[in-house]
Amino acid sequence: MKLSFRDAARLMRDLDDRLPAGVERLQALYPDAGRAFLIGVTGNPGAGKSTVVDALITHYRALGKTVGVVCIDPTSPFSGGAILGDRIRMQRHATDDGVFIRSVATRGHLGGLSRSTADIVTVMDAMGFDIVLVETVGVGQAEVDVVGATHACVVVTVPGLGDDIQAIKAGILEIADVLVVNKADREGADRTVRDLTYMLDLRAGKAREVEIVKTVAVRGDGIADLAGAIDRCRAKAGDLVIERRGMWARAQLGELIRDRVVAAAEASWPGGFEALVAEVAGRRLDPYAAVERLLAAVSAGPSR
Amino acid sequence: MKLSFRDAARLMRDLDDRLPAGVERLQALYPDAGRAFLIGVTGNPGAGKSTVVDALITHYRALGKTVGVVCIDPTSPFSGGAILGDRIRMQRHATDDGVFIRSVATRGHLGGLSRSTADIVTVMDAMGFDIVLVETVGVGQAEVDVVGATHACVVVTVPGLGDDIQAIKAGILEIADVLVVNKADREGADRTVRDLTYMLDLRAGKAREVEIVKTVAVRGDGIADLAGAIDRCRAKAGDLVIERRGMWARAQLGELIRDRVVAAAEASWPGGFEALVAEVAGRRLDPYAAVERLLAAVSAGPSR
Repeated sequence: MKLSFRDAARLMRDLDDRLPAGVERLQALYPDAGRAFLIGVTGNPGAGKSTVVDALITHYRALGKTVGVVCIDPTSPFSGGAILGDRIRMQRHATDDGVFIRSVATRGHLGGLSRSTADIVTVMDAMGFDIVLVETVGVGQAEVDVVGATHACVVVTVPGLGDDIQAIKAGILEIADVLVVNKADREGADRTVRDLTYMLDLRAGKAREVEIVKTVAVRGDGIADLAGAIDRCRAKAGDLVIERRGMWARAQLGELIRDRVVAAAEASWPGGFEALVAEVAGRRLDPYAAVERLLAAVSAGPSR
Repeated sequence: MKLSFRDAARLMRDLDDRLPAGVERLQALYPDAGRAFLIGVTGNPGAGKSTVVDALITHYRALGKTVGVVCIDPTSPFSGGAILGDRIRMQRHATDDGVFIRSVATRGHLGGLSRSTADIVTVMDAMGFDIVLVETVGVGQAEVDVVGATHACVVVTVPGLGDDIQAIKAGILEIADVLVVNKADREGADRTVRDLTYMLDLRAGKAREVEIVKTVAVRGDGIADLAGAIDRCRAKAGDLVIERRGMWARAQLGELIRDRVVAAAEASWPGGFEALVAEVAGRRLDPYAAVERLLAAVSAGPSR
C-alpha cells in the first residue's frame, strides 16, 4: 500500500473536516488513482445489499485481491437496527489487512455526497486497492449518480415485491449493468426474473446487455456467477463509464462550488451563509437576491 | 387570481428556461406569496400517493378551496406505465378552474429540484391558491427536503410491505406530520398501524405528535379524517416549519449558486462548464483545481 490505513483514515477525516491541507494531500495523490476497478451496489431497501457486498468481499479475498468498501448511509434516527445488523456482518472483514471499509453519511450540513464519496474512492484507489465497492442504502438521485459512475453497477432486488418492483424502476434500472435477484430461494424468484427481463426488453434503444443473476448471498450461492457477470463489465465499460464519470464529476463540481461560495460567505459577514438562509426561509429576502450577495462575497474575498 | 393560468404557465416555462426576465417577474411576485397552506405528500412507491392527492383535491374543492398541485417526477424511461396511470386520474381536475397541476422533472441537466419546485410553489402561492400540494414519486434527499419544508407533511404507506417498511424509515419518517396507511381494506392494515406506532415510539426525543390515518383513497374512505389531521398541523407548525424552510432555502441557494457559477463559466471560455467536466471525468484535472478555475470566471465575468 502506498498509504498506510492509519494515514488514509487521517486524510479522510481531514477531507471530511474540509481542511485545506487534506485537499492538497488529495490533489497530490490524484495521479496515483484511476487504476482500481469500481463496483457500485444499490437496490431496494431490504434486498440484502450489504450481504451481497459481504459475499463479494469474501469472493475477491479468496482470489487474493484487495478490496476497499465505501458504504453510503442515510444518517437518520430511524436507520439503526436493520441496517446496522447487515453492516455488522461486514465488519468481520475489519481485521483483514486486504479490506478497508469506510462510511459516508448522506445528511451532512449541506449534503455533499458526491464530493465526499469521490474523495474516499480516490484515496482508496490511490492506496492501491484492486477493487473498490461503493454500496448505497438510499436510492436518491445523488446515490444513483455516484453508483452509476462505477465500472460495474449492480442493482439488487428480491422476489415478492409485487407491484413495488416499480421501486427499482425510476432512474435505477437504467444504470444497472447486472441485476441481482437475491434471496432467490424464496417463492417467486423466477417470476421476478421474468418481470425484470420484461422491463429490460421495454427499454428504449436497448442500449446494452444487462445480465440477471440469482443469488442467496447469505449462503454465498450465486456469488461466483455474479462476480463473472461483473468481470464481463470490464470489457464493455469504455465510453459508457466516461459518460457516467461525467455525471459524477458534474455533481462533485456542483457541491464543491457551493462549498467554496459558502466558505467565502462565512468569511465575509456576521452570521455568514446561515444568516442568508434565515432571511430566505423567513421570506424577508428572495433566493435570487440572496445568491447575488453570496457571489459578491466570492469576488471580494480571499481566494481560499 | 392575480395571475392568469396562461401567464403563470408562461412564467413557469421562462423560469424553467432560466430566462432573466422570468426571474425578475418572480422576484416581483415574491411579496404576494407566503399565504398558501403547503401540504407535502410522499411515501413508498406503489402506495397510492397520487390517488391520495386526487382524493384530497376533490375534498378541498367540495369545500370551495382552490388547489395548486406540484408533482415531482423522476424522469426515466421506466417511469411510464404505473405512474402515468395514477396521474391520469388526477387530470380529471384539469378542466376545473380552481385546480392547477404542474410537473417538475427531477433529472434535469444539473438537478435543480429544490429550485424548480420552489419557483413553481411561489408562483402558485402568489396566484392566490388556498392550498398547494407537493407530491413526490421518489424518496431521495432532495425530495425529502422539499416535501419536508411544507406546513403538513403526509407520508403514505400500504399494508403488506413486511420488512420493507424500513423503506420509509430512512429520512422520511422523521419529517412526517401525518402517516397514511392507504389501501387499508387489504389484509394486515392493523398490523401496519401497530408497526408504525412502534416506530414512532422509538423516535429519539419524541419531538412531536404524528397522527396515523387509515384510508382507501380510491373510494375516498378516510379522506375527511386525513384532511382533519392535516388541518391540525396548521396550529402546531410554527417553529418547525421555519426550521424546515431553512433546509429548503439551503438546498435552493446551493442550486442557484451552482447555476450562476456554471453560467459564468459558459460565458468565459470555449466549451464552458462541460469542458471542465470532461477534464475531471477524464482524470486530467482534479475537481478542486477545476473549481478554482470556475470561481475565477465568476470574479472576472459580468454580474449576470
